[in-house]
Amino acid sequence: MKLATLKDGSRDGRLVVVNDRLTFCTDASHIAPTLQTALDDWDEVAPKLKLLCESLSHEAVPTIRFHEHEALSPLPRAYQWADGSAYVNHVELVRKARGAKMPESFWTDPLMYQGGSDTFLAPRDPVRMRNEAWGIDMEGEIAVITGDVPMGTGPAKAREAILLVLLVNDVSLRGLIPAELSKGFGFFQSKPSSAFSPVAVTPDELGDAWKGGKLHLPLHVDLNGAPFGRANAGIDMTFDFGELIAHAARTRSLSAGTIIGSGTVSNKLDGGPGKPLDQGGAGYSCIAEQRVVETLLEGEARTPFLKFGDTVRIEMLDGNGHSIFGAIEQTVEKLEAVDPHP
Amino acid sequence: MKLATLKDGSRDGRLVVVNDRLTFCTDASHIAPTLQTALDDWDEVAPKLKLLCESLSHEAVPTIRFHEHEALSPLPRAYQWADGSAYVNHVELVRKARGAKMPESFWTDPLMYQGGSDTFLAPRDPVRMRNEAWGIDMEGEIAVITGDVPMGTGPAKAREAILLVLLVNDVSLRGLIPAELSKGFGFFQSKPSSAFSPVAVTPDELGDAWKGGKLHLPLHVDLNGAPFGRANAGIDMTFDFGELIAHAARTRSLSAGTIIGSGTVSNKLDGGPGKPLDQGGAGYSCIAEQRVVETLLEGEARTPFLKFGDTVRIEMLDGNGHSIFGAIEQTVEKLEAVDPHP
Repeated sequence: MKLATLKDGSRDGRLVVVNDRLTFCTDASHIAPTLQTALDDWDEVAPKLKLLCESLSHEAVPTIRFHEHEALSPLPRAYQWADGSAYVNHVELVRKARGAKMPESFWTDPLMYQGGSDTFLAPRDPVRMRNEAWGIDMEGEIAVITGDVPMGTGPAKAREAILLVLLVNDVSLRGLIPAELSKGFGFFQSKPSSAFSPVAVTPDELGDAWKGGKLHLPLHVDLNGAPFGRANAGIDMTFDFGELIAHAARTRSLSAGTIIGSGTVSNKLDGGPGKPLDQGGAGYSCIAEQRVVETLLEGEARTPFLKFGDTVRIEMLDGNGHSIFGAIEQTVEKLEAVDPHP
Repeated sequence: MKLATLKDGSRDGRLVVVNDRLTFCTDASHIAPTLQTALDDWDEVAPKLKLLCESLSHEAVPTIRFHEHEALSPLPRAYQWADGSAYVNHVELVRKARGAKMPESFWTDPLMYQGGSDTFLAPRDPVRMRNEAWGIDMEGEIAVITGDVPMGTGPAKAREAILLVLLVNDVSLRGLIPAELSKGFGFFQSKPSSAFSPVAVTPDELGDAWKGGKLHLPLHVDLNGAPFGRANAGIDMTFDFGELIAHAARTRSLSAGTIIGSGTVSNKLDGGPGKPLDQGGAGYSCIAEQRVVETLLEGEARTPFLKFGDTVRIEMLDGNGHSIFGAIEQTVEKLEAVDPHP
C-alpha cells in the first residue's frame, strides 16, 4: 500500500491511496481524513485502506492523476521526528577529518537526536534560507513511521511497530553545527525543516528489499541533475530500524506517527572512506561526507556546500527502475528577512 | 481566559474553558474540539472562546465541576516542545560543580534543546520509570504556547506570538545525562515525557505579573509535601520568552502549538549560589541544583534524587493565594518491563 497527502490548503492535507506506479490516486479521506488520523487508529483503518488500494489497482474507484508536486510530506507535521545516525562509518569519517577519535561505544549504542517536526517542507518545496554562508547541505536518508511503542520495547517487537517507510532530506546547516554542538545541547538551529518523499509505503510493498529492519536498495542522490550518491541503504547500516526505535523508546513511550530516521546513508565499500561515483564508488548522500573524504585524501575540501539556485534530488528505484516513493526535489533559494527589526 | 483539556478516552482530549478559580468549567468542543484545533485557527477561534469564558463567569452556560485530576496536559501531544535554559545562573552552577568554566557567550546566546512532544504525561500522572538509579529529577519551569512564527522573527514580534502560558515538570534522568551529552547529539533518553499544568492561561490573565515576556511570580515546588523551591520566575531570567522564541525561529518557522520552555527556574539572590528555603533562600526547582550547591559548599551532595514513592508538586499562586494554573502533582513509580525480551 502506498499513501500520500495532497495539498488542500489545510495544515494536514488530504489522505490519498496511490497506485504502485505513482501515476494515479484515489481519495481516502472518507476512511481517514489525514495520515495522522489513520495512524492513530491503524488497526481499524489500515484494512480499509488496503481494500481501497485493491479497488484502485482494479480501477474500480474514481481516480485522479497523481502529481508528486501536489503532495505535501506524508505527515506535513508530526508529533515526533527522531533521527539516528545508523551508518556509523559516516560518523567515524566526519570525526576523523577533524582529528577526533570515535568512541568504541558508537558501534553498540546508537546516536540519535530529537528533530523539529512541526514544519516539514513539501517534497518539492524550495529550501529557503537567509544566509548561504550557513553551509546548507542535504542528507539523504531512509525513515520509518511507527505505531504506538510502549516504553522499554526491544528491537524485535519494535520492528513490528514499523507501519510505513519513506525517504527524507534532512536539511543541515553545516556552518552552524560546530558552535551549536559545542554548547552541549545538540542540534537546533543547525537542523532546519526537513522534507519527506511524496509517498510513504507499507513494508510489504518493498518485497525482498525490506529485510531485518533495513531497506536493501541504493538511494539515488543527485546534485544539479548529476548523480552524486548511489549508496545502498542496506549496506553498512550498523543499527537497523528496530534497534533505533528501541533506543528511542528506552525511557519513554513513542506515540503513533513517530518518524525515525536512519541518518545519512553511507557505504564504506572496500574498507576505505568510500569513493565518488566517477571513481567507481557509491558516492555520498550529503556534501559534508564528500568534503571529509577530500580533506582526508587531498588535504582540503573542494566541493562547496549548496548555493542559492542549486537543486537536490533524492529518490529510490525498484528492481524495474520505477520510483518507489516519488522524488524529493528541492532548490535552494534566498529568503529575505521577514522581520525588519529582529 | 483559562483553557484545559479533559480526558475523554481520545488522544487529544476535549477542550473546556475554566473559570478563574478553577472550580468550574464549560464544554468548548462546539467551538474547537481540541486545544490544537483552536491554536490552528486562533484569530477566528479565540474571540469565541473569550465570549464563552464570559458566559461562564456569569453562569450563563451549563457548567460542570472542574477537577484537576481529570485534565490531560493542555496539549496532550504537541508538534513541538523546545526547552530553553534561560536561568543562566543554573547553568553556571551546574558547570561549576563539575569544574567546568561557562563560556561568556552563554549570557548572550540562549541554550535550547529539542524535546520529545508526542507523549506528554497528564498533570497527575505518575512518573513511571524502570530504574531508580537513572537519577530521576523534576525540573519546575514556565512554558508558553505560540501561534505561527515565521523564520527570522525577532524577539519583539515573537513576544506577540505568545498565546498561552503554563507550567511544566520537565522530568530528567540525571544519571543518563553525562554519557548522553558526551556523545554530542544532546538529550534524548535522559529527557523522558514531561507533564504540564492542568490549565493554560492567556497572558492577560496574569495582569502585572506578566511583563517583558517574563512571569514575575514565585514558582512553588514541593517535595513529599514539604516546600522545596519558591524561586521567582521573573528574577534572574537572562532571556525572556520573546528571545527564546526568536532563537528557535532563526532558521525555521515555528508552527502554531509550539511549546517553548524557560528551563529550570533558578534565583541567585545575593550573588551566591542560592540557599535552601529553611536557610532563608528561595530554594530550588530541581534536585540537581540543590545537590550542586551542597557539592560546592559542603564537598558532596546529600539530597538524593527521586525514589519510587516520592511525590513532586509544582504550582503558582496569584496575589490572593489562588492557584493560577492548577497543580502538577506526580508520584514516582516503578514500571515493570513491558517487553520480556528487549
